[in-house]
Amino acid sequence: MTNRQIQLARRPTGAASADDFRLVETPAPEVADGQVLVQVEYLSLDPYMRGRMDDRRSYAEPQKLDAVMTGVGVGKVIASKHATLAVGDEVVGTFGWQTLALSNGRGVRKVDTTHVPLRAYLGPLGVPGISAYYGVHRICRPKAGETVVVSSAAGAVGSIAGQLAKQAGCRAVGIAGGAAKCRHVVEELGFDACVDYKAGNLAADLKAATPQRIDADFENVGGEVLDAVLRRMNAFGRIALCGMVAGYDGADVPLHNARSLLTNRLKLEAFIITEHLDVWPEAIAALAPGVASGAIKYRETIAEGLENAPQAFLGLLAGRNLGKQLVRLA
Amino acid sequence: MTNRQIQLARRPTGAASADDFRLVETPAPEVADGQVLVQVEYLSLDPYMRGRMDDRRSYAEPQKLDAVMTGVGVGKVIASKHATLAVGDEVVGTFGWQTLALSNGRGVRKVDTTHVPLRAYLGPLGVPGISAYYGVHRICRPKAGETVVVSSAAGAVGSIAGQLAKQAGCRAVGIAGGAAKCRHVVEELGFDACVDYKAGNLAADLKAATPQRIDADFENVGGEVLDAVLRRMNAFGRIALCGMVAGYDGADVPLHNARSLLTNRLKLEAFIITEHLDVWPEAIAALAPGVASGAIKYRETIAEGLENAPQAFLGLLAGRNLGKQLVRLA
Repeated sequence: MTNRQIQLARRPTGAASADDFRLVETPAPEVADGQVLVQVEYLSLDPYMRGRMDDRRSYAEPQKLDAVMTGVGVGKVIASKHATLAVGDEVVGTFGWQTLALSNGRGVRKVDTTHVPLRAYLGPLGVPGISAYYGVHRICRPKAGETVVVSSAAGAVGSIAGQLAKQAGCRAVGIAGGAAKCRHVVEELGFDACVDYKAGNLAADLKAATPQRIDADFENVGGEVLDAVLRRMNAFGRIALCGMVAGYDGADVPLHNARSLLTNRLKLEAFIITEHLDVWPEAIAALAPGVASGAIKYRETIAEGLENAPQAFLGLLAGRNLGKQLVRLA
Repeated sequence: MTNRQIQLARRPTGAASADDFRLVETPAPEVADGQVLVQVEYLSLDPYMRGRMDDRRSYAEPQKLDAVMTGVGVGKVIASKHATLAVGDEVVGTFGWQTLALSNGRGVRKVDTTHVPLRAYLGPLGVPGISAYYGVHRICRPKAGETVVVSSAAGAVGSIAGQLAKQAGCRAVGIAGGAAKCRHVVEELGFDACVDYKAGNLAADLKAATPQRIDADFENVGGEVLDAVLRRMNAFGRIALCGMVAGYDGADVPLHNARSLLTNRLKLEAFIITEHLDVWPEAIAALAPGVASGAIKYRETIAEGLENAPQAFLGLLAGRNLGKQLVRLA
């Protein structure tokens, strides 16, 4: 039995490319006392990984060179010398981009798959879904009748954020790249409108889609998308800053309408959901029934096999996925 | 008896100039039932006035053309047909840039000058002081030992904000324009350090002045000053956005380091102190003893005579004042 893993071979200069990664085969690790071996079934790919590939100061340590790429996955315990995790347990953890993960159990959570598939814990019941819940309910705090804008609306986080805004009685307006994504956002996810930022009329189209202007913004993009939103904010608006995909490749993305923060007395709060673990049980309890029943819609783009993870990751950065980008490993 | 007033003669294109204003003499107004006539003693000049001279959407209506410039002043009631305001009362109100102001009493507050001079209600006990109090204690919420940066540190708001940060046990670091202002900020106001942004090494000088980086920022400037601060923020930092003098003349002032908001999980909140009237009694009670005793230091730059108000205002926009810019009218 061998382990296969994707390592960071070099740090990107500018945009990331397939040559930044390396596929390596290693012998299956030995399980020592207190450890488990997990067969990873699905790996989650996320935009934050691009930031960690650079050697710059951020909220997390940079990804180490020549080491397995970091990442969260779900899988099954296939060997255990651990007190509380047993063979057959279905678990979530930071297993990395690899097929077999050795763990001392720290940060590994056993999850309940009675009503939902295991991989839902990488999507609507994982970091994306709980990020959406936190940003909407703890920062945006939308009141019925308000207008909530969600950028990357077809993405794993944005798709849930908009549905939560709808549940709160708001007008939910998405921003997404391309007509197909926008159709999905309106027709399948139930947003009231979606603006295609690739159509070239972002400001005008956003204005048309937000006749009452914008009371809250769930921001995943930054740059010109955030600028367009800032231009439409109402007084006392709230901005939940969850991501800034624009500029992940190191490009300077200046913000031109920061003055709106002042003139509209806005409140902006950025967050990383793994720093708010207290909200997880509440969020999972709130989201799980909708995920199980299908009332909460979510999409997945699933790449097949570890060797395709780098291309899938580059596709994610280019916006080619719809919903949560996963890689099936087993 | 005649009233003299400064009107807005035209809207500026780019930087404001003296020709945008017009001095007009009108007969003293008649006092009708329910009204008072106030002889204005001091007029307050404030950067926000520049924004109102433009015809663009902001938190307040634009200043009307050919009408008296809006502004807050202090003075004495010299005629009254009002139920609760009597001749001789000392009052604060939005009296405009004029020597005699007719009022129905709305928004006019009688103030106590037993221990402090009347004009203190335009400075440390008025909008500037209470803005400082709100931004520091409701948004920055500094803990002892933290580093608080204050831009426009020699200004009416910043000077008080830094002293409140010192009172809270913090390292207070000012940013101001010019060596004289910086000396004043450190030697007279008691800040721990002050960076002269006009010296041309803002980023490096701010780095040297903030060895523990920055936990909270009381922001009055925006633009490159805010960019330099963003580059030095610690995780979970707070930014009280009180003003953005950079760009008041309509110039595009792009922000390049907005990414720091995300990577450092910052909280930014903008405010206009007149929308938080609930905090005024608490703030005045907290500030008044220090103002009366001299423990809270404040400076005033006083122009003589209404006719000099436009030049004083342009000087304020160019940063030529030290502390609160007032105009003595009587």
